[in-house]
Amino acid sequence: MTPPVAAHDPISTLGKSLGKTILIKCKRQKVFKGQLKSYDSHLNVLLEKVHYTYNVRLDDEEKTLEEKSEDLDRIILRGDSIVFIGLSA
Amino acid sequence: MTPPVAAHDPISTLGKSLGKTILIKCKRQKVFKGQLKSYDSHLNVLLEKVHYTYNVRLDDEEKTLEEKSEDLDRIILRGDSIVFIGLSA
Amino acid sequence: MTPPVAAHDPISTLGKSLGKTILIKCKRQKVFKGQLKSYDSHLNVLLEKVHYTYNVRLDDEEKTLEEKSEDLDRIILRGDSIVFIGLSA
Amino acid sequence: MTPPVAAHDPISTLGKSLGKTILIKCKRQKVFKGQLKSYDSHLNVLLEKVHYTYNVRLDDEEKTLEEKSEDLDRIILRGDSIVFIGLSA
Amino acid sequence: MTPPVAAHDPISTLGKSLGKTILIKCKRQKVFKGQLKSYDSHLNVLLEKVHYTYNVRLDDEEKTLEEKSEDLDRIILRGDSIVFIGLSA
Amino acid sequence: MTPPVAAHDPISTLGKSLGKTILIKCKRQKVFKGQLKSYDSHLNVLLEKVHYTYNVRLDDEEKTLEEKSEDLDRIILRGDSIVFIGLSA
Amino acid sequence: MTPPVAAHDPISTLGKSLGKTILIKCKRQKVFKGQLKSYDSHLNVLLEKVHYTYNVRLDDEEKTLEEKSEDLDRIILRGDSIVFIGLSA
Repeated sequence: MTPPVAAHDPISTLGKSLGKTILIKCKRQKVFKGQLKSYDSHLNVLLEKVHYTYNVRLDDEEKTLEEKSEDLDRIILRGDSIVFIGLSA
Repeated sequence: MTPPVAAHDPISTLGKSLGKTILIKCKRQKVFKGQLKSYDSHLNVLLEKVHYTYNVRLDDEEKTLEEKSEDLDRIILRGDSIVFIGLSA
Repeated sequence: MTPPVAAHDPISTLGKSLGKTILIKCKRQKVFKGQLKSYDSHLNVLLEKVHYTYNVRLDDEEKTLEEKSEDLDRIILRGDSIVFIGLSA
Repeated sequence: MTPPVAAHDPISTLGKSLGKTILIKCKRQKVFKGQLKSYDSHLNVLLEKVHYTYNVRLDDEEKTLEEKSEDLDRIILRGDSIVFIGLSA
Repeated sequence: MTPPVAAHDPISTLGKSLGKTILIKCKRQKVFKGQLKSYDSHLNVLLEKVHYTYNVRLDDEEKTLEEKSEDLDRIILRGDSIVFIGLSA
Repeated sequence: MTPPVAAHDPISTLGKSLGKTILIKCKRQKVFKGQLKSYDSHLNVLLEKVHYTYNVRLDDEEKTLEEKSEDLDRIILRGDSIVFIGLSA
Repeated sequence: MTPPVAAHDPISTLGKSLGKTILIKCKRQKVFKGQLKSYDSHLNVLLEKVHYTYNVRLDDEEKTLEEKSEDLDRIILRGDSIVFIGLSA
């Protein structure tokens, strides 16, 4: 059962995901999956054990798009590039 | 009959859609359909049972655009990428 | 005869269009025509009986641009993507 | 002889153009010519008897750019897309 | 000899250029040269006797870029599109 | 063991990285690696002993993308272009 | 030896570069090298004896990118287009 939610403060819902793994989809197909350690009202977030996937345009004739990924210990992600944050039910 | 509306506060109209399914069209052909759980004055919204559709440019010669979709339990969507929110009558 | 206008508050002119049909031209050739129900100082607007036209780039070889349209009961349109609002005389 | 100007308030100069025809050049080659009825500190403006010219990319092979124009009774133009406003001497 | 400058207020330096001709380079290769009449803290400026040069992409096969120019009596230029302002020594 | 973190202030976590080497990934594939000397709430940062890598599009027929790099003594990097900052565990 | 730095005010470090030559890298490959005369908290800067280099896309078939440069006496550069400022050690 989803815990009650403050009708006018969606960002505060993140409080219930502290220590949990969340999925963050950003502009230009950047995706971050990691453990939420802290956040602020601008949706700047501190994540740990982060799996980061992104696209790179190769220099072949077709300019193919190749998906790459990195594992990062700890990152501060600026809210400015976030489209949405996926939370567990 | 559409309930009366505050002449100078379109965002507060969302209050009448809490718990209802709304359609959100964002920049770059991203579309979200889900149950509205909470919102704030920047149009950041918390949605549940979300169907998310978006376009991906394939790497074939014609660079075809393919529509993809995902179902997400619960998301915080930043108001910054929203163009409009469709409400039921 | 156009009613007198406050020299320094163009947005308040919208007050005279409440309940009337207005035309809104947005960035990237998006156009909305609907009945104005409410607005705020950021030009976020609530519209009803809305006809929405927009362009989609087809995947044919010429990447043709095709005009599409939708009818929507009620929408909140963010001021951020508006270029201008056409009012009746 | 150009009337004296407040050294630190270029926008207030618009006050002298109320009721006069002004030319507004916007981003992406959009141009508006109309009678200034009101303005605010964000350069949002209310214009009447407006001639609006803009470019449309045709779907021919060369993707030709064609200039189009519309006459509008009364519009609120958001300051956000304005590059400059041409005033009479 | 360059007059002393307030270490923390570059914009106020414009005060010494009131009535003088300045060069303004904007985003997307737009250039304005004119007499500075007034300015504000957002670098909105009022210019007179303005020579405005800009680029237009022709519709020939090579999509050639052609430089065009206009002479304008008096303009308000929004600070938002300015990259830099060239002052005389 | 990761030091405790203020649940609502991810940026303050940078305090623990003062004097340490951090990795900063910016928009348009710009990457900075250097010693953090100071930061502010807008994520403007002062770095020393900086290795800066970026992409340049060559003018060959394929418009190949070539990676370049520079070593810089000391830089102030504006927070505006930062996507994320990688911190050591 | 690098002078001590306020842990939370990277911009104030510019105070130590007043009268010195600094390198400023901006968006879209614009680069400015000049003597810093004044700056503000938005990183608007006043520079003198400025060498400005930028890229221009030629109209040849390959759309070659050519580097150009200009020497300017005195400029006010808006902070908005700055990526980073290189300071001497």
